[in-house]
Amino acid sequence: MAKIFMAGSNFAGGVAVISGKAADEVASLRLKLGDEVIICDGKGSDHRCRISRFSDGEVQADVISSEPSAAEPQVKITVLAAWPKSPARVDQLVRYCTGGGAAEIVFFRSDKSGRSMNAKAEEKHLAQLAETAEAAAKDAGRSVIPPVRAVSDFAGALDIAVKTTLPLFFYESGSGRLSLKEALKDAGSVSSAAIMTGPEGGFEHYEAELAKAVGMRICSMGSRIQRCETAPLMAMTALLYETGEL
Amino acid sequence: MAKIFMAGSNFAGGVAVISGKAADEVASLRLKLGDEVIICDGKGSDHRCRISRFSDGEVQADVISSEPSAAEPQVKITVLAAWPKSPARVDQLVRYCTGGGAAEIVFFRSDKSGRSMNAKAEEKHLAQLAETAEAAAKDAGRSVIPPVRAVSDFAGALDIAVKTTLPLFFYESGSGRLSLKEALKDAGSVSSAAIMTGPEGGFEHYEAELAKAVGMRICSMGSRIQRCETAPLMAMTALLYETGEL
Repeated sequence: MAKIFMAGSNFAGGVAVISGKAADEVASLRLKLGDEVIICDGKGSDHRCRISRFSDGEVQADVISSEPSAAEPQVKITVLAAWPKSPARVDQLVRYCTGGGAAEIVFFRSDKSGRSMNAKAEEKHLAQLAETAEAAAKDAGRSVIPPVRAVSDFAGALDIAVKTTLPLFFYESGSGRLSLKEALKDAGSVSSAAIMTGPEGGFEHYEAELAKAVGMRICSMGSRIQRCETAPLMAMTALLYETGEL
Repeated sequence: MAKIFMAGSNFAGGVAVISGKAADEVASLRLKLGDEVIICDGKGSDHRCRISRFSDGEVQADVISSEPSAAEPQVKITVLAAWPKSPARVDQLVRYCTGGGAAEIVFFRSDKSGRSMNAKAEEKHLAQLAETAEAAAKDAGRSVIPPVRAVSDFAGALDIAVKTTLPLFFYESGSGRLSLKEALKDAGSVSSAAIMTGPEGGFEHYEAELAKAVGMRICSMGSRIQRCETAPLMAMTALLYETGEL
């Protein structure tokens, strides 16, 4: 069945009023009166609806049933990614993390991320990435489009990470790192987690020290060096595997 | 330390003779007499060498020590991927699976892979993909470049899969599929595994039936639909996590 996203919709009274971009989508899907469609409210619920009325630029649909989407993980995963230098990798990271089940994707500048973009350009870039996330959420059959945003620096990212139950920091070198298995050994009971990964070239030693000092778990991703665009997806996969969601 | 690949090298007598492409690489790295370099023999061993002689187009290096590479997984993973329609995705799949630790990558045609390429064009494509795998192996710090090859059809892929100890087939729909966790519950003791994944749009029902009939484990990858270029990496990550290699 066709699936459309309609953020912030009001389904009160069992009727969905579809307008704007979502109405255009209904048109492009060539849906007719009486056809069924799933409306994802972007907050984790799927509403099965039957189209009941077309009017100028607006579509009405009766809500038949509403239920929490099965495609959303129980554990809320925040991906904190240092901006990759390569724009293609930024895009892939958003795509893959959305498909993998991230609740939110937050970029930040780290020592090696080498990003210099003014506020306006960054805003534009984030708007493009929001579209990437929306498309990827649809591809994956998700009901939530993870917000994509940026915080200005490393400290801002740490602050978000430590507010989760399981703050994981991935670092490619140094001793005393936990294996993923060790880092996730009690993950079964967590409600939220942060996966913090570096840009091409990884994090600097002082960054790992800071992360450790604020209480993050410093983890390795095995004995191979992982790519910045796929590392968060790999960590997320191991986490969801451990929590029994894969 | 710089790392170069030299497939099929002969390290007898404790001297490596570096010629051809590998010698060009030594030159491009601006290595000098007495410098150390790691030579990966492409079969899983790392040889630490000291450069002892330059001659016309050839470099000699004394082998200081040789050891099995720590970057190679104990379990030999064969990725069997239906050709994605998108050439970019083919490339990404090779890149990601190499970084993830695949021992071998084998493409095949499936019902929905929609590939029509003559033998000569396919040979050229595979040669490009071998270069992609070599670059990705270097990026990941691996000592083995996984061979990338193609078998002509689905049956050929099944034949390879069932020769491994743990043949996993990923299918997006239908009942009776195992969760990844169920499929991997006894993975700790396996020496080899196959991860077989579909193209964009996945496998057809009859393909899953065939895979089941020959003894493959039909698995789901959770409640989201995964991308063909990242699905094998995700399965590999869960497998290596389960076997304690992450």
